[in-house]
Amino acid sequence: MSRDARPLGVFDSGVGGLTVVRELRRQLPDESIIYLGDTARVPYGNKSAETVVRFAREDARFLVERGVKAIVIACNTASAHALGALREEFPVPVFGVIEPGVQAALRESVGGRIGIIGTAGTIASGAYQEALRRERPDALIMAEPTPLLVPLVEEAWLDHAATRLILDEYLAPFLTAGIDTLVLACTHYPLLREAIGAAAGPAVRLVDSASACAAQLAMAFGGGELVSGLPPGRVELFLTDLPRGFSSVAGRFLGGGVGNPKLVTLE
Amino acid sequence: MSRDARPLGVFDSGVGGLTVVRELRRQLPDESIIYLGDTARVPYGNKSAETVVRFAREDARFLVERGVKAIVIACNTASAHALGALREEFPVPVFGVIEPGVQAALRESVGGRIGIIGTAGTIASGAYQEALRRERPDALIMAEPTPLLVPLVEEAWLDHAATRLILDEYLAPFLTAGIDTLVLACTHYPLLREAIGAAAGPAVRLVDSASACAAQLAMAFGGGELVSGLPPGRVELFLTDLPRGFSSVAGRFLGGGVGNPKLVTLE
Repeated sequence: MSRDARPLGVFDSGVGGLTVVRELRRQLPDESIIYLGDTARVPYGNKSAETVVRFAREDARFLVERGVKAIVIACNTASAHALGALREEFPVPVFGVIEPGVQAALRESVGGRIGIIGTAGTIASGAYQEALRRERPDALIMAEPTPLLVPLVEEAWLDHAATRLILDEYLAPFLTAGIDTLVLACTHYPLLREAIGAAAGPAVRLVDSASACAAQLAMAFGGGELVSGLPPGRVELFLTDLPRGFSSVAGRFLGGGVGNPKLVTLE
Repeated sequence: MSRDARPLGVFDSGVGGLTVVRELRRQLPDESIIYLGDTARVPYGNKSAETVVRFAREDARFLVERGVKAIVIACNTASAHALGALREEFPVPVFGVIEPGVQAALRESVGGRIGIIGTAGTIASGAYQEALRRERPDALIMAEPTPLLVPLVEEAWLDHAATRLILDEYLAPFLTAGIDTLVLACTHYPLLREAIGAAAGPAVRLVDSASACAAQLAMAFGGGELVSGLPPGRVELFLTDLPRGFSSVAGRFLGGGVGNPKLVTLE
């Protein structure tokens, strides 16, 4: 099988999805990536399902018009609400972050006591809970929204006393319930992995949907013949708004320089 | 002068501007109000000036098409970036929250040591700082973004240990500098007034742009003859997205029931 040189298309409500791009570059280094961050309308996590589906459809159309071979919804809220609609409407494979996160949680959890933290939208959608229950009906499943974590990450308070206090409060009911696995169901949360791990304690395994998603893509696209001498994949960034300080925030998520993003308007 | 029965038009990026509506109803009880919350694109505070002006123009057009007699920009970020543009483009008077906040701060501050807290967008715009410097060039003016306060208000953690810790950290440089007045330059912050007052201490006077703005409207529109027997003003709510839990959040901001909001799409 020879390699399909078309880029992978990744979209997110903002910059959080760059944690998925970071993992894709690690696991599929020669794939080119087009990333769309809908920074003009970020966040999606506190908006209704109807609005999120409308935004996700516009994001996906933008990527398909640029000739991508697959769409990655690197946003948990959009994956929860729009995966089915996008799979029906677009002619390329569509990947979300929820299925891979669920599969990883099922692999990691020994005792079947699984917690999920995410935005209000992701948790209220019930997408993780239902998928886990379908696969493992006997599991204890507990999900709570943790809406302060995204602003804490964007403020870069990754190791701050207030962050620890907030995490202790958010995680207390999970620890009381004796979970053995915690799913970080938001692309921002991998940046808090250390603080979350410290608050959860060594008995709780952390599952990160971003790297689980990248692993699924690697299975789908990593099997092709690697042409030696191929230049490493390019990452092209499109944004619907260019906020102040974008490069430094984006660099934290991507784990490296982000180049010059291009500003676009969706319709 | 007889009373102009057309409604006042108020817009905000989301529900925060309802603190302005609350004050308008207190100070101008017989005025009808049309409120537009751009909840599909909320927040504006971390977006670029160009994008905020584009959104504000669409918001204002929506209100003008509904026959309002004045536009109130009940959003500090939009006031900072778009007041001039909207005043030029629309045929009705346009009020922002910054000028009234600045005037109130100048009245309250005895020693001319004024602090300002707001979103990243409001603070980076320099609008408060410049207006204060223009009016009182000898003042000490200090402004810092406090981006975690909006999510704390939306989480309703108004009196939480983490909120106190975060406020202590945010206010420390202001207290070191010896400010005598602190401007709450974001419509969400009046809900934290008590916690901010406790953290700032009794020597610091708090100025709230929402009530200062309503007072300016009361001067502009309160002079007319009140027709006795007039029904109390109605508040009509339009939103670009209807998020989960909207009524309870909106009720906290408005200080009472909000009725049924109507969902609209702007173009």
